[in-house]
Amino acid sequence: MKLPDSNLLNGLNFSGGPGALPESVLRQVQESILAVPGVGLSILGISHRSDWFAAVVAELESNIRQLLGLSADYHVLFLQGGATQQFSMLPMTLLAGRTQPAEYLHTGYWSGKALPEARREGPVRVLWSGETEGFRRLPSDGELDFRADAPYLHYVSNETVEGLQFHRTLGRDDVPRICDMSSDFLSAPGEFDRYAMIYAHAQKNLGPAGVTVVVLKDELLREAPDNLPGFLDYRTQIAAHSIYNTPPVFSIYVVLLVSRWLRDEIGGLAAMDAINTRKAATIYRAIDASRGFYAGRAAQADRSRMNVAFNLPSPALEAEFIAAAQAAGFSGLAGHRSIGGIRASLYNGLKLTAAEKLADFMADFQSGRS
Amino acid sequence: MKLPDSNLLNGLNFSGGPGALPESVLRQVQESILAVPGVGLSILGISHRSDWFAAVVAELESNIRQLLGLSADYHVLFLQGGATQQFSMLPMTLLAGRTQPAEYLHTGYWSGKALPEARREGPVRVLWSGETEGFRRLPSDGELDFRADAPYLHYVSNETVEGLQFHRTLGRDDVPRICDMSSDFLSAPGEFDRYAMIYAHAQKNLGPAGVTVVVLKDELLREAPDNLPGFLDYRTQIAAHSIYNTPPVFSIYVVLLVSRWLRDEIGGLAAMDAINTRKAATIYRAIDASRGFYAGRAAQADRSRMNVAFNLPSPALEAEFIAAAQAAGFSGLAGHRSIGGIRASLYNGLKLTAAEKLADFMADFQSGRS
Repeated sequence: MKLPDSNLLNGLNFSGGPGALPESVLRQVQESILAVPGVGLSILGISHRSDWFAAVVAELESNIRQLLGLSADYHVLFLQGGATQQFSMLPMTLLAGRTQPAEYLHTGYWSGKALPEARREGPVRVLWSGETEGFRRLPSDGELDFRADAPYLHYVSNETVEGLQFHRTLGRDDVPRICDMSSDFLSAPGEFDRYAMIYAHAQKNLGPAGVTVVVLKDELLREAPDNLPGFLDYRTQIAAHSIYNTPPVFSIYVVLLVSRWLRDEIGGLAAMDAINTRKAATIYRAIDASRGFYAGRAAQADRSRMNVAFNLPSPALEAEFIAAAQAAGFSGLAGHRSIGGIRASLYNGLKLTAAEKLADFMADFQSGRS
Repeated sequence: MKLPDSNLLNGLNFSGGPGALPESVLRQVQESILAVPGVGLSILGISHRSDWFAAVVAELESNIRQLLGLSADYHVLFLQGGATQQFSMLPMTLLAGRTQPAEYLHTGYWSGKALPEARREGPVRVLWSGETEGFRRLPSDGELDFRADAPYLHYVSNETVEGLQFHRTLGRDDVPRICDMSSDFLSAPGEFDRYAMIYAHAQKNLGPAGVTVVVLKDELLREAPDNLPGFLDYRTQIAAHSIYNTPPVFSIYVVLLVSRWLRDEIGGLAAMDAINTRKAATIYRAIDASRGFYAGRAAQADRSRMNVAFNLPSPALEAEFIAAAQAAGFSGLAGHRSIGGIRASLYNGLKLTAAEKLADFMADFQSGRS
């Protein structure tokens, strides 16, 4: 089978994750497989104890802080194990042995995955759950009764599966605010210095699967237990600048290249947000103009700018849509296996022109069928 | 600065890890950054839930079993967190709550790293330690008193830092034998079906840092606790064929390419062993011919075929050696930071010609100085 050009295919990759990376980054990654500029060795054969790699980590820590507008008292870590490891590492550190429950929001698939891992380590209070409503909206402030004595508040800023996104900061300033931003990290400006800890795996907006960024403050760790394995102890990782044991050198290097692209080629988070907002508006406009042929899952106010989840009038039409889209070069449009339907993920690496092409395709597909 | 050709530099990379990968694999990896053959998408943007990736994992499981000569009742896992995570995950699974101690050998830097992690989870008996002798030899069978009631035996087959390697299988067949083969996995044939579990991180002989291969049998897990976080539970990972949460897709794909290279281009473990034996003999011959100018660290019988650690008459000469080697295109020759000296790592990806060039360089370097 003759495949279409890879630039076209990569450019039309709407995968929910691992997501598409910018073409200019891919070109640099490709070069580095044989020879990292200025080093001459393959990125896959460079020691993690080299001066070069220490500089990679230092620059990336600094780039992340700069992009988020955070001061140097936030540590920036690059860990393995995905957000899933954070689901456990966080309560192991802050909840084990506590009597007051940590507060969790249950707003969709991923915040639901965090719950049993937290409950295994200590007491949890679910502040609000959208489960009975099928996760089609997020709570209003009036529905959330944050308590002052909670060890921390945990929520997921963007539910990748259902396409729900908080467009505000939740919680109280006197309780550590901890957020899983895996699927909207570095997609827009925010009040990041109001969080005690933010974590995000790389494979949406940042780079390849296999590395997770954790941003956190010392004061969060004042009462952390001393009996955790080193790789699960934030303090060990902080002291080692993420090189406690061999880190995923390649993935961290790619995240560095993406951070430079975001700063230098895009121009930072405000510029990224402007592009992301237009991308999302393009697809939601196509949905809203379809007179119900395309039905968005999320309540209007809680629509995600990263993941647009929608349905067609029948599963058969959805299958037809996905097949036709694939034939046209689009990929990654099948909804998450837990809910089906269609999902267009619009991560940082996807261009506005790709969203426009998808909107055109949606209109064309509908025109013969409704 | 004009750097030498990357093929030369990669070909003379004697790094202790991440180690050099074969050039033909690097070429395929480079291609996959823009487009995986038959898929057309960048390897960095392919979903871990795709049929393509499920086939990658299935083929790699099968290739590892085939190379090791293992039956299908061995599971093959691809996990994150390095061998360090296994240092904890293993005793969490097999030692927590036990009264009989697990047996550990302390033969060098890495087996020493496993000890405190095991002790945190349960009782440990150190069968033998080479610490007071400076880790220059391995124990004989007469020095090892294996007990029948130990939950398991743990040892490290090759000590990367000190250049010590067991050339036999240790322990009793009625006690689960568990081995960290991180630095000599897939380097030679062995009695692999006598082990209950083998683990090895990828960054020596297999691929990029960020993935660890674990080979184990069900019967090892019969009494495993039920309260472990999913990502630390071997049974969860087995049931999910390593796709419990998003795995390091890129690293696993590179390991697949390396497994194909080892099988198809090299011809399997016996052929690999023949090459590795000649590489090691070439460097040890240079040491033995130097009349003491180069002094090998390891006792003759325990010399590693993967890592040749040696000293020169003074630290000043060692620094001079490393600088001169670097100027000649060699890299990665500095000894581990814990002991200094020189270390030439001869992982699978390094060619015999590279070892010959290093031996020539060693003779030339000596000729003006002794």
